[in-house]
Amino acid sequence: MKPSIPKGTRDFSPSEMARRNYMQGVIESAFQRFGFKPIATPAMENSQTLMGKYGEEGDRLIFKVLNSGDFLSKADSEQLAQRDSKAVAGSISDKALKYDLTVPFARYVVQHQNEITLPFKRYQIQPVWRADRPQKGRFREFVQCDADVVGSDSLWQEVELIQLYDEVFTNLGLEGTTIKLNNRKILSGLAEMIGAEDKLIPFTVALDKLDKIGQDKVIEEMRGQGIADGAINKLQPLFDLSGSAVDKLGSLEGLLADSEIGQEGIGELRFLITTITQLGLRTANLEIELTLARGLNYYTGAIMEVAAPDSVKMGSIGGGGRYDDLTGIFGLKGVSGVGISFGLDRIYLVLEELELFPEQLSESVRVLFINFGPDEALYATKAIAKIRQGGLSCELYPDAAKMKKQMGYANKMNIPYVVMAGSTEIDSSTFTLKDMRTGDQKQLDLTQLIDAVSNVR
Amino acid sequence: MKPSIPKGTRDFSPSEMARRNYMQGVIESAFQRFGFKPIATPAMENSQTLMGKYGEEGDRLIFKVLNSGDFLSKADSEQLAQRDSKAVAGSISDKALKYDLTVPFARYVVQHQNEITLPFKRYQIQPVWRADRPQKGRFREFVQCDADVVGSDSLWQEVELIQLYDEVFTNLGLEGTTIKLNNRKILSGLAEMIGAEDKLIPFTVALDKLDKIGQDKVIEEMRGQGIADGAINKLQPLFDLSGSAVDKLGSLEGLLADSEIGQEGIGELRFLITTITQLGLRTANLEIELTLARGLNYYTGAIMEVAAPDSVKMGSIGGGGRYDDLTGIFGLKGVSGVGISFGLDRIYLVLEELELFPEQLSESVRVLFINFGPDEALYATKAIAKIRQGGLSCELYPDAAKMKKQMGYANKMNIPYVVMAGSTEIDSSTFTLKDMRTGDQKQLDLTQLIDAVSNVR
Repeated sequence: MKPSIPKGTRDFSPSEMARRNYMQGVIESAFQRFGFKPIATPAMENSQTLMGKYGEEGDRLIFKVLNSGDFLSKADSEQLAQRDSKAVAGSISDKALKYDLTVPFARYVVQHQNEITLPFKRYQIQPVWRADRPQKGRFREFVQCDADVVGSDSLWQEVELIQLYDEVFTNLGLEGTTIKLNNRKILSGLAEMIGAEDKLIPFTVALDKLDKIGQDKVIEEMRGQGIADGAINKLQPLFDLSGSAVDKLGSLEGLLADSEIGQEGIGELRFLITTITQLGLRTANLEIELTLARGLNYYTGAIMEVAAPDSVKMGSIGGGGRYDDLTGIFGLKGVSGVGISFGLDRIYLVLEELELFPEQLSESVRVLFINFGPDEALYATKAIAKIRQGGLSCELYPDAAKMKKQMGYANKMNIPYVVMAGSTEIDSSTFTLKDMRTGDQKQLDLTQLIDAVSNVR
Repeated sequence: MKPSIPKGTRDFSPSEMARRNYMQGVIESAFQRFGFKPIATPAMENSQTLMGKYGEEGDRLIFKVLNSGDFLSKADSEQLAQRDSKAVAGSISDKALKYDLTVPFARYVVQHQNEITLPFKRYQIQPVWRADRPQKGRFREFVQCDADVVGSDSLWQEVELIQLYDEVFTNLGLEGTTIKLNNRKILSGLAEMIGAEDKLIPFTVALDKLDKIGQDKVIEEMRGQGIADGAINKLQPLFDLSGSAVDKLGSLEGLLADSEIGQEGIGELRFLITTITQLGLRTANLEIELTLARGLNYYTGAIMEVAAPDSVKMGSIGGGGRYDDLTGIFGLKGVSGVGISFGLDRIYLVLEELELFPEQLSESVRVLFINFGPDEALYATKAIAKIRQGGLSCELYPDAAKMKKQMGYANKMNIPYVVMAGSTEIDSSTFTLKDMRTGDQKQLDLTQLIDAVSNVR
């Protein structure tokens, strides 16, 4: 039987790991410069922590872990006889794999509230699991990468998170991303303005599709949701909105003149636009996108999303927003939070497509010593220790195999330098260094050798 | 209901994460200098990959993941009616959480054999799960950290792995560890010598306890296992073995003169001792421990284990050995491997007890800017961007809260530098820097400020 892994999961090879670690390293170092601190939570949470937090569909997609030992002893006979999988699952499984990082983070904040100093800025880069149908770019195990601040409702947090996106994508060499901004309060204001407060969700779901399906289809969908034509007509100025961010804000201010919550949203958005304009961004563009909704039920203030540069076809590569009462689900009220997330798998694909991964990453080891036998191996091993002390990666081919085989290994492994040291070299305390790219060979002493292989190629 | 996490699992706080990341960073950078390359495998494996690989006890301790959807539909009626948990588990769960990194690694090598160049040197640092009874230092989710080479039976690999242990522990500041060496072939030779080949396992299990329970009890246990007194008497020279590693090897050579496999083991051990003696170790001690067995069924050649310095009471902090046919369980024969493992949780406890974690790690952010209001915050944010560009961590207190509260935050977070910039500073393009340790305050321009906070404290 050929060995395999579960559907929707992945092995990562050394070259994929090198790229993923590079990407994660750039992100983590930015998180740290911005004052975010890492935490980690277990892969498994108690089922009651997760169930009911992601809607009915979410509950279905949560991977449940079977209780250990004689798990059936506690199951209900009738439920078993009826093969009621859902009910039985509740009695034979009390743990589940985490579905995202947000709910476990909320649980963490509540559980550790006495050890935490607010505002608490945390980042978390960990795998999550979803029993989704696997498809291109969608996996059952994937890594989420979140930065959140809880305990302050200052808009300076949103400013900082926008800068953080700019910093990370710039440092990854991914210039020309677009950070799209909206505010849940503006969406509420619009629904209020057209008298569809009770239909806020279908209203924004339809509005969110403007980019993809166009104005006519959006209107059709709203009509289908029971929003009256008169109400929809009031939205015309919104569809016609154009110009700079400041222009859009001006028009919107008129449109939502009678909505208190709408005005509040405009004020917040204006603060972010004005402040970021004064501070400047390195390579990202900032845009207002009034149709942007994302998990609306969740966000209460700012909503943001990052689009890759136009040259790549890819959905959003990041998103986030303000949520006013995340920890409320675990009994701790009044803790406002705001956070962003990086879509690692998509960012990986974008960097790959634009060839933005550093070339150096494909080099597995810097220097290989050829193994000519026991005495030569001992001589080599002494030199290898010195080279490693200088921080470089270096290894001895383990067997005194044929030269062709050892050189073949160096080639396949993309090793840039090969060192040969036989009796001639040992007698003169030297090493013959071969540059695998140019084919050049030089006879060097140890100091010269270390110098030569230390050069950045 | 107070939120909690499953028994035997852990949350990691920012300060624990800083220590764990530091430890892992030291280990990973050594792995890389030694030419090991990272891979990762999924948290879940197909059950058939794991079941039956760890003995009956292991099977019981594997966490099984419930199939998604209507999992009961395929369950056998009779097994359900009889509440046969073990049999039902097989039909309602086809995935499980990985139990160690070794079996998934073997699966990886076989599955990807056409993409891999041998010898393949890989490291892997990932969590594993065991439904063990939790106790001090034993968790249900814990991180394993392994480095293995497959595809070569050269003893130079063992030499390199011993050097790797020395390198890692020295770089962690943990001097005076003891690397204990043995060889499975010597154990086989001893069993052969006393005519107890058929009792190799109970024989070595008893021998392994010599340190803890003493010679008399070991003999008693062997007797209990049905090893004859005449045979046990032949072991007396082994109990009396003393002196240097070379002395021990000499005596052993006489003792095992008639055992071919024993001589082979002695030869291997002698090569390692001689070679390491010529190369030298930085801070570790190398010792022969003829009673060392560790998962004996598994190892076929070298067996090694690392003990913390004598000043700390702690079991082994690492171990490993040579296994000749790991990938055989997945149908790929003849691939020899050798590997070592680092016991991260125990190493953490040792570093903590000996106060070997760098002090710098407890610093969460280098510089905090006090928030005096919108204009001051904008002025601060511009300076913060420059400080971050220099690679330092820096943040603005998000709210214009009372001074006492902001300073209290700096203290609690262990932030070494606080910057105040109000209208006076803005007018003169300066910043007031307070060193939180000394209480000193200075008024500086931006360049001076960056210089001052960049100094290593």
